[in-house]
Amino acid sequence: MVEAVTLAIVVGAVFAIYLVKRRRSYRDLDAFYDLSEGERFAHRWGYTDTRFEFEDPRTVKVTGSRYPISGYRMPYLVSFLEDTLDISIHPDDMNVEVEDQEVPEPNINGGFLASVQARFKADQYSRDAKERLIHSHGQLSVDEIYRVLYSSSLKRTVDLVFYPEGEDEVRAVIELANEHNVCLVPYGGGTNVSGALACPVEEQRMIVSVDLRRMNRILWIDQENYLACAEAGILGKQLEVELERKGYTSGHDPDSVELSTLGGWIATNASGMKKNRYGNIEEIVLEATLVTPTGEIETKHVTPRNSTGIQPRSFLFGSEGNFGIITKAVIKVHHLPEARKYGSLVFPSFEKGVGFLKALRQTGGLPASIRLGSNKELRFAQALKHEPTFLKGIKEKVQAFFMQKILGFDPMQMVVCTIVMEGSKGEVRQQDKTIFSLAKKHGGMSAGASIGKRGYALTFGIAYIRDFVNELQILGETFETSVPWDKIHQVCQAVQKELDEQAVRHHIPGKPYLQYRVPQTYHTGVCIYFTMGFCAKGLERPDEVFHVIERRLRQVILDNGGSLSHHHGVGKIRQGFLPQVQTENTIHVLRQTKKAMDPNNIFGIRNGVFHAFPED
Amino acid sequence: MVEAVTLAIVVGAVFAIYLVKRRRSYRDLDAFYDLSEGERFAHRWGYTDTRFEFEDPRTVKVTGSRYPISGYRMPYLVSFLEDTLDISIHPDDMNVEVEDQEVPEPNINGGFLASVQARFKADQYSRDAKERLIHSHGQLSVDEIYRVLYSSSLKRTVDLVFYPEGEDEVRAVIELANEHNVCLVPYGGGTNVSGALACPVEEQRMIVSVDLRRMNRILWIDQENYLACAEAGILGKQLEVELERKGYTSGHDPDSVELSTLGGWIATNASGMKKNRYGNIEEIVLEATLVTPTGEIETKHVTPRNSTGIQPRSFLFGSEGNFGIITKAVIKVHHLPEARKYGSLVFPSFEKGVGFLKALRQTGGLPASIRLGSNKELRFAQALKHEPTFLKGIKEKVQAFFMQKILGFDPMQMVVCTIVMEGSKGEVRQQDKTIFSLAKKHGGMSAGASIGKRGYALTFGIAYIRDFVNELQILGETFETSVPWDKIHQVCQAVQKELDEQAVRHHIPGKPYLQYRVPQTYHTGVCIYFTMGFCAKGLERPDEVFHVIERRLRQVILDNGGSLSHHHGVGKIRQGFLPQVQTENTIHVLRQTKKAMDPNNIFGIRNGVFHAFPED
Repeated sequence: MVEAVTLAIVVGAVFAIYLVKRRRSYRDLDAFYDLSEGERFAHRWGYTDTRFEFEDPRTVKVTGSRYPISGYRMPYLVSFLEDTLDISIHPDDMNVEVEDQEVPEPNINGGFLASVQARFKADQYSRDAKERLIHSHGQLSVDEIYRVLYSSSLKRTVDLVFYPEGEDEVRAVIELANEHNVCLVPYGGGTNVSGALACPVEEQRMIVSVDLRRMNRILWIDQENYLACAEAGILGKQLEVELERKGYTSGHDPDSVELSTLGGWIATNASGMKKNRYGNIEEIVLEATLVTPTGEIETKHVTPRNSTGIQPRSFLFGSEGNFGIITKAVIKVHHLPEARKYGSLVFPSFEKGVGFLKALRQTGGLPASIRLGSNKELRFAQALKHEPTFLKGIKEKVQAFFMQKILGFDPMQMVVCTIVMEGSKGEVRQQDKTIFSLAKKHGGMSAGASIGKRGYALTFGIAYIRDFVNELQILGETFETSVPWDKIHQVCQAVQKELDEQAVRHHIPGKPYLQYRVPQTYHTGVCIYFTMGFCAKGLERPDEVFHVIERRLRQVILDNGGSLSHHHGVGKIRQGFLPQVQTENTIHVLRQTKKAMDPNNIFGIRNGVFHAFPED
Repeated sequence: MVEAVTLAIVVGAVFAIYLVKRRRSYRDLDAFYDLSEGERFAHRWGYTDTRFEFEDPRTVKVTGSRYPISGYRMPYLVSFLEDTLDISIHPDDMNVEVEDQEVPEPNINGGFLASVQARFKADQYSRDAKERLIHSHGQLSVDEIYRVLYSSSLKRTVDLVFYPEGEDEVRAVIELANEHNVCLVPYGGGTNVSGALACPVEEQRMIVSVDLRRMNRILWIDQENYLACAEAGILGKQLEVELERKGYTSGHDPDSVELSTLGGWIATNASGMKKNRYGNIEEIVLEATLVTPTGEIETKHVTPRNSTGIQPRSFLFGSEGNFGIITKAVIKVHHLPEARKYGSLVFPSFEKGVGFLKALRQTGGLPASIRLGSNKELRFAQALKHEPTFLKGIKEKVQAFFMQKILGFDPMQMVVCTIVMEGSKGEVRQQDKTIFSLAKKHGGMSAGASIGKRGYALTFGIAYIRDFVNELQILGETFETSVPWDKIHQVCQAVQKELDEQAVRHHIPGKPYLQYRVPQTYHTGVCIYFTMGFCAKGLERPDEVFHVIERRLRQVILDNGGSLSHHHGVGKIRQGFLPQVQTENTIHVLRQTKKAMDPNNIFGIRNGVFHAFPED
C-alpha cells in the first residue's frame, strides 16, 4: 500500500519536474556550483554552508544557497528511505559527532623538522592535531568519514603538514625527506574514495603530508596550440573559472570538480562526465612533471603525439602517490562550446536503455555526456523533489496517468537517461537528431531538457546526502566498475543478489539498498556506478560488516567480468584484488620501477601493488 | 624554360586526373592493394611482382598488376627528377645489386641450438645465410637497403632465425635463451625505418631472430563487445581481410599495412591513416601480452577502461623489442562503415591549407583521414602520371588556364588536400558539408573525389619508388615529427634551409630534394612527414654524408619545436637525441624497468634508451 502511494508520487513527478519552481532558474552547467570558495568541512564532504537537515521529523531541507537544490524542502525523502530500507527513521536516532577527536601525538624527526624550519616560512608547516587529522583521510564513507566523525578511531595520522609553494620547494622537501628518512604523502583535494590517503599503521618513520593546494596557478595558456600549463594543486573549479575567463575549458568534469585537483586527477587516472567530447584525464593531459627522489620524470618537448619509446607520462596516470609528487601538467584546452543543450529520455526498462546506449555508440551522434540510471535511481531522484503546488500536483497526476495507462510505462521498471550535448550548433543539431530518433526505435521518449539538467545538478548533492544518511546510521558507499556490453545485466544482477544474501547473513535490519547507473559508455562497454547502503542500527561492528559485504560485492563484480575500478582507483581498499587482475610479473616489474625512482621508499603511502617494497 | 614546360604539364594535370584511364577502375580503399600474398623481395620493399623500371631512357613503367599504378607508363618522372635535382639521369648509371651478399658466419651457442633442435620441428629454425641477412635489417633506406643491395656491408647479422608457432613456444625459447645466455630479437614485418632490427656490433652472444609471422591467427572475435584477439605476427592486410569477412575492420591503416604486423605496430607505437575515426594504435589495442624473461606483462581482465594503477600495456607501446616478445593483443573492431567518400581540395598555398586544417579541427566534421601535401609533393604526384590522350591533353590545358589565369592559383604554390570520409551516411554527409564549406572560407576549392582517391592509392607506391631512385644513386628517405600548430612553417622552413646549406657544404651534385605533408592533425598540432633526397653520384662516402645531413635535419626539427618522432620510433638512428627529449632520471627509470623484466638483457637489441644496460 505504502509502495503504491510512493509510486503514484514518483511516476507523476517524472513529467512534472520541468515545470517545478520557475522562480529558481537553473544556471548553466559550469554554474551548477557556486564559484565562491567558501569554508570547507574539516572531514565531511564539501562546504559548511550546505547540509541536509531535518526541518521536522518528516521533512528534510538543504541549507545555504550554493547549489540548485539549496533551500529545498524535501517532504518525500524520509518516506523513501523508510520504504526502501524497510526501517523507521527518527531524528532522535541521529549519530552524534565526536567533539574532539583523539589524534595520536606526532612522531617528529628532529633533523627533518629543523631543516624545514630553517628553510621555509612558518606558515608552510603545521603540527596542529586537527590539521593533521584532516590530512590523514580521504572521503571513504565508512572507513574514513564515519569513523572520524562518530568513533574517532584513526590509528595512524600524518605527523606534519607541509605546504610547498613551488616546484623548487617540492624538490627541496623531497631531498630533505630522503636525507632524514621521512615518509612523504602528496595531498591534493582529499576527495579520493579508495583509502589512498590512509596512513599505513606499520610506518615507523615520520609521515609528512605535502599539501599541494598553494601550487594552484595557471602558468601559461598557449592559445595558438590549445594548451595550458597549470600547477598540480589547482582545484578543478578554479581551473575552469580561470580558463573560462579566457574563453576556454579543459572539459574535465568529474563529480568532485569543486574539490579535487589536477594532480589528483592524474594520480587517480580520473574520468570526467564529458569524456565523450574531451576525453578522460589521460587524453586531456599531454605531459606532466613528476618529481621523485631520484629526479624528474617528464618529456621535455610537449608535442601532439610521440613514438619515442615508453612514454614517461604513463608512469603518472594511476601512480596514486607512490612514486613522487606531480607538480604541474600541460593539458589540452578547448574553446567554450558554441552550443550546449540538455535532454532526457524515458525508457520502459533499464535493458531497453542499455540497448539504446549501445546503438548510439555506433552513430556519430554521441553527446558530451549521456547517463542512464536504474529505476531505483529514478525513484531516489524523485524522493529529493520538493512538494508540488496544488496545480502542479494535478498536472503530475494527469501525466502519470498518461505515462502509465496510455503508454504502458511501468513505474517500477522505467528509467531515465540524461544528456548534455555540446559543440558547434551544427554538431548539437546532429546529435539531437540522432539521439532522439534512435531512442524512438528503442522504445524511448523525450522527457525534456529540464529533467536532463536536473540530473546533472543533483550530482553535486550526492556526497552531502551520504553524510546525511551516515548521521541516520545508514552506511552508504558508491563503487564502480567497467564491463563489456554483454556483461552489464549479469554484473548488476549478481551484485544485487549478493547484497541481498549478505544482508540476510549479517542480520542487517530491514532491507539493503542498491541503485546503479551507466554514467559512461565506450566502444567496447560501459562504466557502471553503484550506490549501496544499509541500516547499521543495532549491528555490533557495523564497519566490519560493511567491509565484508563491500569485498564480497567487488569479488562478485570481478567474477562476472567487471574491472577492479573504472575511475576511483585502487588505493588501499582494492589492493588485495590486484593479483586477480594483473600477472605476478607485472606486479614485480611495477615494484622495481618504483624502487628505481624512490629507492628509500620515501613515498611510502603503500597504495595499489606498493603495499610491499622489494628488498633486493 | 624547362621549369615552365613542367609547370604547364603539372598544372594541367591536376584537373585531368579524374578523367584518366577509365579502363582502370579504382578499387575501394581496402582494395588499394592486392589481397593475395605473393612473393616478397628479400631486402627491398614489397612484392617481387612490382618494380619501377626503365621502359626506355625517358620512360619509367611499373610492372605487375598489384596496385592501381601497376602497368603505368610514366613519361614525366625522369624529367621531373632531372629538373628538381638538377642532374641528368641515364639508365646506364644504375647501381648494380651485389649478387651474393657476404654474410658473417653464424656465432652458434651449441647448448642453445641443441635444445632448440631437441624441442622444435626442423622447419622452425634456420642458419641459412640469406634468411639470416633478411632478418638483420629493416627498411632504412640508406643504412640498410642501400647498403645490403649495393655494398653488402652489414657488419653483424643474426645467427639463427626461429619461427615460434604459439605463445607456449615463445615462452619456451625465452627460457632457453635465458638459460644459455643467448640474445633474442623479435621480428614482425621487418618494415621499421628506425634501425630497430640492426644487430648491435658489440653483441658477443649468439643472436636469434624470433620471427613471429607463423603466429598469425585471429584467436577470437567478440561481436557483442566489438573486440577481437589476434596473435601478434598477423600482417595488417591479413587481419583486415579476415575481419572484413565478418563485417568488421580494426581501422588501423598505416602505409605499411600490407607488410607490417600487429605486434610491430604496438612495439613501434604506430599511427594509422584513419586515426581520426579509429585512433592510433594505443587507442585501438585494449590489452596485449608481453612475454619477458621474468614472466608475462598483461592485464588478465579486458575491460573498456581502468583506473587500477600504472597500466601494464603502457610498457608495450614503444617497447621496440627491448623487453620481450608481444604474443597477442585484444583490439577494438568496428562495423565496416556504411558510407565512404573521397574528396580533395586545392588551396592557393600550403599556409592556407594549414589554416584550413586547424579550423577544421574545431568543428565536428573531421573525416577519417585528411592529408595536406606541399606544392613539391603535388608536383611529384603529377610526375607519376601517365601520358594523357590527345583529348585529355586539350582538356588539361583548358583547365590549367582556368586555374591559373581566372582563379589565380600559382602552380608553384598551390597544394592539394586529400580526404577520406567514413561513417554512417549522415556522418559522411555532415563531414562533407562542413569540410567543403569551411574550405571555401580558406580559399580552397574542391578538386573532386578521384584526386583524393588517387592520393591514397599512391601511398602504396612510395617505398617502391624509393628503391627505384636508390638504383639511380639518389639517396632518399622519409622522416617525420609532430609539432604544435604554430611551429609548422618554422619547422618546414628550417629543414629546407638546413638541407640546402648541407648540400652545399658536402658538395652534393645538383640540388637536394624536399617535400612534405601534414598526414595527421591533432587538437594541439600536427604530424609532418618529410621526404628528402639527393644525388650521391661521385660522393666518396655517400652513406656518411647522408647520415650527417639526416642528423642535422633532426636537430633542426628539435630546435624548432618538433618532436623526435611521431610514429616511426627511435630505434638506433634517433637514440642519440633522447637525452634532449627526456630527463636523465626518466632514462634511468626506464633502464631499471627493463632490468626488472629482463635481468640478463636477453632482449639485447639495444633500441632507444637501452643502448646501455644498468650494471647495478
